[in-house]
Amino acid sequence: MPSPSVAAQSLTPAAIQAAYGLIQPHVHRTPLLTCKTLDTIASTPQAPEALIGTLFEGQTPARPQFRLFFKCENFQRIGAFKARGAFHALLRLLEDRGEEVKQRGVVTHSSGNHAQALALAASTLGIPAYVVMPRISTPSKIAGTQSHGAEVIFSGSTSIEREAVVADIQAKTNAILVPPYDDFNVICGQGTTALELEAQHAEAGSRALDAVITPIGGGGLNSGVATWFSDKQTRVFGAEPSFEGADDCRRGLQAGKRVEAVGTLTIADGLRTPVGLLNWEVISNEKKVAGVFAVTEEQIKSAMRLVIERMKVVVEPSAVVGLAVCLFDENFRRQVEQEGGKDGWDVGVVFSGGNTTVEAIAKLFT
Amino acid sequence: MPSPSVAAQSLTPAAIQAAYGLIQPHVHRTPLLTCKTLDTIASTPQAPEALIGTLFEGQTPARPQFRLFFKCENFQRIGAFKARGAFHALLRLLEDRGEEVKQRGVVTHSSGNHAQALALAASTLGIPAYVVMPRISTPSKIAGTQSHGAEVIFSGSTSIEREAVVADIQAKTNAILVPPYDDFNVICGQGTTALELEAQHAEAGSRALDAVITPIGGGGLNSGVATWFSDKQTRVFGAEPSFEGADDCRRGLQAGKRVEAVGTLTIADGLRTPVGLLNWEVISNEKKVAGVFAVTEEQIKSAMRLVIERMKVVVEPSAVVGLAVCLFDENFRRQVEQEGGKDGWDVGVVFSGGNTTVEAIAKLFT
Repeated sequence: MPSPSVAAQSLTPAAIQAAYGLIQPHVHRTPLLTCKTLDTIASTPQAPEALIGTLFEGQTPARPQFRLFFKCENFQRIGAFKARGAFHALLRLLEDRGEEVKQRGVVTHSSGNHAQALALAASTLGIPAYVVMPRISTPSKIAGTQSHGAEVIFSGSTSIEREAVVADIQAKTNAILVPPYDDFNVICGQGTTALELEAQHAEAGSRALDAVITPIGGGGLNSGVATWFSDKQTRVFGAEPSFEGADDCRRGLQAGKRVEAVGTLTIADGLRTPVGLLNWEVISNEKKVAGVFAVTEEQIKSAMRLVIERMKVVVEPSAVVGLAVCLFDENFRRQVEQEGGKDGWDVGVVFSGGNTTVEAIAKLFT
Repeated sequence: MPSPSVAAQSLTPAAIQAAYGLIQPHVHRTPLLTCKTLDTIASTPQAPEALIGTLFEGQTPARPQFRLFFKCENFQRIGAFKARGAFHALLRLLEDRGEEVKQRGVVTHSSGNHAQALALAASTLGIPAYVVMPRISTPSKIAGTQSHGAEVIFSGSTSIEREAVVADIQAKTNAILVPPYDDFNVICGQGTTALELEAQHAEAGSRALDAVITPIGGGGLNSGVATWFSDKQTRVFGAEPSFEGADDCRRGLQAGKRVEAVGTLTIADGLRTPVGLLNWEVISNEKKVAGVFAVTEEQIKSAMRLVIERMKVVVEPSAVVGLAVCLFDENFRRQVEQEGGKDGWDVGVVFSGGNTTVEAIAKLFT
């Protein structure tokens, strides 16, 4: 296997275009939605009082102009963008290794959405699937994974605990590992989100996208999106939760070194993992990713409330960290004010998934 | 003013087409969504145990085949179909009476969505608006009404209490009453929902719609939809909550006489009012409305959970009574099985609105 820095050189827009050709029959072209109310809220300066107790206390609130374009991967198959990467990885495996894959099966570990995605792709393509999930995963995600015929094996929550169980299963079954994010084919699959987003934005108007912002957990989505836009003017940003150090990518960029382990129970349960090696190669390249921001649990909840109540769209907490950056991060908002000026910015915001339950929503808001 | 039975003769598809021409610049063409998971659930026979304690206990569960097409008026302006009727009523008022309307203003009473709709239409068209709302209305609906510049006056919950306050305001201001549902122009506006639904369904395939089902509160939506389809093969059905006698329309049809007052606190708060006089003229005409069914509070909650968790779409309880009929009413399901046979039915299901809050969702599901 090539080293991450060598493999990263093959992550090109052409590789993502090729992935799209392969997965198109299996995934939805999810809608790109707009919402005037959210544009207005995002384009209104925050109250000075809202900045008290934050890094921005005492500053004059920024006056950015936003036109937001929401790429709704919560409407994707299995309710998250992960279907793209999982289908692509398995279709490439079948291309490369043929029938052997159907005999050995595939294995992965995931807090939920990659699990369901791999289970769906595997059952669609006739491949046995073993999925290692943390015991504390959202029950609907466990049920979803099992409903697609995958065998679920439980583990602890940290990536170290999960990987140990995966190794155990591989030893027993000889199943092929399909990593949730640190994988060339998975990244190319997730990057197709950007290809669609750009095309749909172009259909909606003549102006180019100024920026796209996505959540960063392991970094599969963000590195794929950044790869697609790497030869274009559109800036790519990432967003993370700050709770209990979940902003490993942001901290790693500051320190000039990838953070290798994270122990966080942020409500954004899809973003509890550290950024992968190959993902880091892309995201730490400042020509590809223009910045990574972190938001608090309260800011995530505020953004989630707005999307549910104003857009009438169901999102999981991980899905709205990018919107929360647009709404609350004064550094990002200042950049949009200064670089966008009066015209403002057209910003693509990827809603990564919508797998939650009414009970989980109730728990967050009572 | 003509009597309801005379006015009902002018409720024709052409009147709805004309309404559409007038309101089109002001309303959204809301999407028509499908969901394979919900089709599968609706097309699976209920478990015999699920029928215990219901009217259908001991029967063999029906085996209907459904293809459901959800007309998402929760994505309409102000989050409900009511924007259609309100814009149409005010545009006609301006046509008929001109500047006088802007001097006198308009007044209405509403549990929420018509209130917001009238407030939006009035502010858009430069007309002062007074809105009488029950004190116990959802706070987000009160705030939404006020945010459009309408003056909100509180009242008790029953229609008798509300109408008394309206009369009081009319005496003081000379404002013109725009009823929430019992009104020719309001009904024509709401009927444009059906016009779009039919066109969008035709775009999606070659088959004709077998049926459409909508919620019935005051009956504005259902009578408008039934008017549109009155010269076509598509059957129109209505759905109500059964809690505390909220199924006034169903009971009225059984008794052959409109029920004039209802006192219910069903969770479907948009459906607490009795059917209006003009609405009754349409709905009680069996050539126009083929049947009205009632569902329990638990069935409404089950349907709402499915829409939120599986479709990732936010609906208010009132919006899903039609879906609940498809899922749970064995009489309706038997009809689909018997008349639809192997091919099943294409059923348009109108989601009437999505105005709820995360707190309200939490309260329903904890």
